[in-house]
Amino acid sequence: MRLVVPLQGVFRGRGGILLGSLIPCALFYFLQLYLKRQHSDESSRVPPSPPPFGVEVSSLANSLAKSDESPYDIGLDRVARDSYDRINNPNGMIDLSSSESKLCLDLIAKWVSENMKKSIVGDDDFTLSVNGIATFQPFDGLQELKMAISSFMSEVMGGMVKLDPSNMVLTSGATPATEILSFCLANQGDAFLVPTPYYPGFDKDVKWRAKVNLIPVHCQSKDNFALSITNLEKAFSQAEKDQVKVRGIVFSNPANPVGNLLTRDMLKRLVHFAEKKNIHIIADEVLARSVYESDKFVSIAEVLDSEGLNKNQVHIIYGLSKDLSLAGFRVGVIYSSNNTVVAAARKLSRFSPLSAPTQRLLISMLSDRKFIQEYFESNQKRMRQVRHELETGLSSLGIKCAKINAGFYCWADMRGLLRRTHSEEPELELWNKFIDVSKINIIPGSACHCHEPGWFGICFSALTSENIPVIIERIKKVVETCKSSF
Amino acid sequence: MRLVVPLQGVFRGRGGILLGSLIPCALFYFLQLYLKRQHSDESSRVPPSPPPFGVEVSSLANSLAKSDESPYDIGLDRVARDSYDRINNPNGMIDLSSSESKLCLDLIAKWVSENMKKSIVGDDDFTLSVNGIATFQPFDGLQELKMAISSFMSEVMGGMVKLDPSNMVLTSGATPATEILSFCLANQGDAFLVPTPYYPGFDKDVKWRAKVNLIPVHCQSKDNFALSITNLEKAFSQAEKDQVKVRGIVFSNPANPVGNLLTRDMLKRLVHFAEKKNIHIIADEVLARSVYESDKFVSIAEVLDSEGLNKNQVHIIYGLSKDLSLAGFRVGVIYSSNNTVVAAARKLSRFSPLSAPTQRLLISMLSDRKFIQEYFESNQKRMRQVRHELETGLSSLGIKCAKINAGFYCWADMRGLLRRTHSEEPELELWNKFIDVSKINIIPGSACHCHEPGWFGICFSALTSENIPVIIERIKKVVETCKSSF
Repeated sequence: MRLVVPLQGVFRGRGGILLGSLIPCALFYFLQLYLKRQHSDESSRVPPSPPPFGVEVSSLANSLAKSDESPYDIGLDRVARDSYDRINNPNGMIDLSSSESKLCLDLIAKWVSENMKKSIVGDDDFTLSVNGIATFQPFDGLQELKMAISSFMSEVMGGMVKLDPSNMVLTSGATPATEILSFCLANQGDAFLVPTPYYPGFDKDVKWRAKVNLIPVHCQSKDNFALSITNLEKAFSQAEKDQVKVRGIVFSNPANPVGNLLTRDMLKRLVHFAEKKNIHIIADEVLARSVYESDKFVSIAEVLDSEGLNKNQVHIIYGLSKDLSLAGFRVGVIYSSNNTVVAAARKLSRFSPLSAPTQRLLISMLSDRKFIQEYFESNQKRMRQVRHELETGLSSLGIKCAKINAGFYCWADMRGLLRRTHSEEPELELWNKFIDVSKINIIPGSACHCHEPGWFGICFSALTSENIPVIIERIKKVVETCKSSF
Repeated sequence: MRLVVPLQGVFRGRGGILLGSLIPCALFYFLQLYLKRQHSDESSRVPPSPPPFGVEVSSLANSLAKSDESPYDIGLDRVARDSYDRINNPNGMIDLSSSESKLCLDLIAKWVSENMKKSIVGDDDFTLSVNGIATFQPFDGLQELKMAISSFMSEVMGGMVKLDPSNMVLTSGATPATEILSFCLANQGDAFLVPTPYYPGFDKDVKWRAKVNLIPVHCQSKDNFALSITNLEKAFSQAEKDQVKVRGIVFSNPANPVGNLLTRDMLKRLVHFAEKKNIHIIADEVLARSVYESDKFVSIAEVLDSEGLNKNQVHIIYGLSKDLSLAGFRVGVIYSSNNTVVAAARKLSRFSPLSAPTQRLLISMLSDRKFIQEYFESNQKRMRQVRHELETGLSSLGIKCAKINAGFYCWADMRGLLRRTHSEEPELELWNKFIDVSKINIIPGSACHCHEPGWFGICFSALTSENIPVIIERIKKVVETCKSSF
């Protein structure tokens, strides 16, 4: 029998047997020593004691309960504690961060007060129809509401797209719609690419429970924050190197908060990119009708239709919070032609169902074409007007905004007010001045993962013309403080 | 220098050096061989190919989209496709599975049609108050609704408990409340103990996304399905042996579907058990006021209060689907005195928010004490009446029911109709006869993880007295088929 030892090939001749044995033996010995030490280290460690107040909770609960939040949340919290009121609290915090529109609430109020009872209770004996409101309804929404939303969305998307209500899952807001899609498209630890600056809520909706990572793909001010396929390619390759499985691209179109639009050509290229990489597209189109020149918006659904592209990997998120100013109603939509995704999302909608009375009210409202038409026209006109006034005011202070076509924000360039523009810190210092000196809550670009410090989102759609001089006066204070300290 | 080899202590003397070297060398050699083989095995494996229809979705979506559902879901699906209507489809499927009450919908209808507009739109100029309905509201519910629900729950729990609205998180139904608590109390792979028979929805709410396991703790018909601490202890020890971390006990009280109640003494012992094991209690009390003799129900909140027990590890789920017949409104409640859990649940409520118009409606309804009182009285009277009629009818067919005090089901003993009672199969055969022969959808005990085949849940609270003869006639058909085939 020939004696075989591991390193014999290295040490030839008779010495090979000895050295070839001794070296592994030494390695073995040190391994034992190492393992023994490790073991005694572990046993000498104190076992993880329960937190001081008793029973353990989950790691998720522990991390969520901590208050290490983004400036976006901190700002909102400050507003909640000391909210501006023209008469009762004129020195309170003014919120210019929340992405919502209040410009046409008068129209909503009028319609609701005139039609509420008829919409929900109806004209006939309500004891007959109460069954369709009080009792269990499908988790994923009433068929009549899906039909009404299909027509509504089709109009919002420019009237060129025909949507199939059976591809639709309704949820209690676009927030759970995003989360449900994350759960359906990616496994834990996988990632989505996301162009920056992006809506801060994505971090919560995608990461918290679905545990999907977001890989930022930076867009730059010199390109007016337009997305480039080259940057997507780079981010994708880097993820591959890092052994992270990219499952999709998630973006808002119109972009939130910046407000720029993806062109038809870019949408086509995005779909081709997704096909090539075999990944999904999640297109958040909640601002589809909040566009100043409405013919400029192109829905990805329209591109898929007109180009005869594969619909299986494109999923659209919609909702009534933005375009119809109904954030409080909590209505979200998942639209997908992927049967597996729709079937799974339908089951997951049990965790985010819509309330039946609200659904009934909306079926009536969305079917009132005349009202919807009037609302859209007024809303667009008022948005343009208020935005123009705010932009003019900012311009008088030397602050320019990105040239955009949609959304609720002026995306303001305040790089000139920063001492240094190469880190986040001076941006947050400036933001703190807005909070403390001017009592204005705006969104620092870093909260939206903007790559270039000094950009801020200022929401104009919750303002009225009469508020604008107050805002400009407050911003002026900060501008002057900055300039005097240079 | 002394030569040290790993097994020298075993082989003493000069031979020690040789054998003590050779044996580890041999081990080392075989390890290399093994690793090499493993490696070539792996590289020869075909990489996981994308599914035939293109882009991959998540494992969760794949598993949810498959239709391997429990009889509970299959039955509901059958009902949805061919639903009974006394006039239009008298041979359709009658659903006696869904846990909901329709006995007092007339009262709800009357209240809603009289008060809807006032509740939501108000008497004053609605353009002023529309802001509180159309715009963003806190995800975890309006403060006024929390206050109204606190008083309501306190009354439902027998008037002995004072609840603090700041310990409350509102969600769009008890379903998301259960899921949110699962996410907050346990990490993936941990487990909750759950007494059987249990509500089939728990499997979805706890396992699907939070990925917490449920360990059944079997209760037996000879004890009238009462829970025993001994069985809990056994299940807990077994889990420890299996190295599964038990994080809590989840149960419904009143039990759903069985309808028995936990005594004050048992609740105390449960709390002590949880304290001893340092685990949580999730008490689902959604049927608290659906009790035939209302003084019999004891809330765990009352036990905690009266005994001065630790409240930190007890969490209550409530909702308005059962006690107020408002399943379509989708209102769930998490009540907890654990600050970390409340803070985390509040953040997670962004995925399951309530609609503002529904909240406004409920604030009015729950504040109308006279209406609530009348509703409770009528509901209890009607429940008792219909249940009595169904039980009498079943009894005439030789079917006895468990003696219980609450809930929407007769928990019927049909073991006499099975050929064999030692497996699930004959139970499902019988259930299929109910579906196919009688066109009645009831719940087989196995869908609720009942340990003893032959028990069925028959919901009476969606029936009217006039339906009962139809039901009994249909059940009779199955009974006769069974008896003739013996």
